[in-house]
Amino acid sequence: MVRSHSVTRLIECLGHLPGVGPKTSERLAYHLLRVGEKEADELASAIREAVRSTCICSSCFNLDESDPCRVCQDEDRDRQVILVVEDPRDLGAFEESGYRGLYHVLQGRVSSLEGVGPEDLTVAALVERAKSAREICLATSPDLEGEGTARMIGERLAGMEVEVTRLARGLPAGATIAQASSSILADAIEGRRPLP
Amino acid sequence: MVRSHSVTRLIECLGHLPGVGPKTSERLAYHLLRVGEKEADELASAIREAVRSTCICSSCFNLDESDPCRVCQDEDRDRQVILVVEDPRDLGAFEESGYRGLYHVLQGRVSSLEGVGPEDLTVAALVERAKSAREICLATSPDLEGEGTARMIGERLAGMEVEVTRLARGLPAGATIAQASSSILADAIEGRRPLP
Repeated sequence: MVRSHSVTRLIECLGHLPGVGPKTSERLAYHLLRVGEKEADELASAIREAVRSTCICSSCFNLDESDPCRVCQDEDRDRQVILVVEDPRDLGAFEESGYRGLYHVLQGRVSSLEGVGPEDLTVAALVERAKSAREICLATSPDLEGEGTARMIGERLAGMEVEVTRLARGLPAGATIAQASSSILADAIEGRRPLP
Repeated sequence: MVRSHSVTRLIECLGHLPGVGPKTSERLAYHLLRVGEKEADELASAIREAVRSTCICSSCFNLDESDPCRVCQDEDRDRQVILVVEDPRDLGAFEESGYRGLYHVLQGRVSSLEGVGPEDLTVAALVERAKSAREICLATSPDLEGEGTARMIGERLAGMEVEVTRLARGLPAGATIAQASSSILADAIEGRRPLP
């Protein structure tokens, strides 16, 4: 094979990224070789800097440049409500939605396929935080593993004083009935509410 | 937004990669933050090293660690046959197929959509090399832009002594007739050959 050692190594490293197969990593590698040193250096140093300057918040397990993270430091939030999310990206999405309570990042979800059990997540720390909270809202994804994770956490919190809630399910904003799946419509009917 | 500056920068940089949209670059960034310094550093240094140690061959425009590249230096090849490819990845694919002539890397294809004209490619250098070649085989992709690029090069080489050929088109090895598209079948019939 005519490929040079350093290019082979780059293709291998890129292939470790999630969702990047051999063809994609080859395409990305040759893109970086083509754009040249400036853009490639920029990416390399962005990777180094982001990884070096980021730490995990010891309270909510969010990724940020400070510990406690900026959310946990923010005194203007309702500190009695904790939204439980799977990972920091979900936290970012809820921040954009205008939510103003605290978070707890599970760092994953229970998945028998991927061999992830409750002990691999930050559930023990959540149970500890739940002692001084008013409400724990479980915001895992509304799919099989997300529901399983929520159910498992619900069982761990059962018997505690805290109120445990789950995100609403129903029609997504902007949806058209005709194109919604039958499970979305079933959720929407089951969760129907009085007209305000 | 709660995202730290360095993470935002990493997401931006990853978003410059081809085929990587905002959601994917976010996913890649958080993957790198999760795997930690060792793997991220490995990727960063692989990028730097590959870009630094790679140069463009001044004869065939292949990417390699030496100029002339290893293919052009190889005395065991038929130096009178030049396979014209769009980019170095295509060259790698032909190397694996067992081809033992030389190459000419166009560094792209004529594309009115992307504003790439013949003068953006290495066509002038190919015309120069054609003067001392026996055969130029045009190995651009069998799609609209690849065909257009091949036609344009054919016109440039017209009137020269060199023989200009094009890759065969037909059924791909391992194909089943029932699943081949009508244009594949049309090519296969048009290019039919006597049974050897």
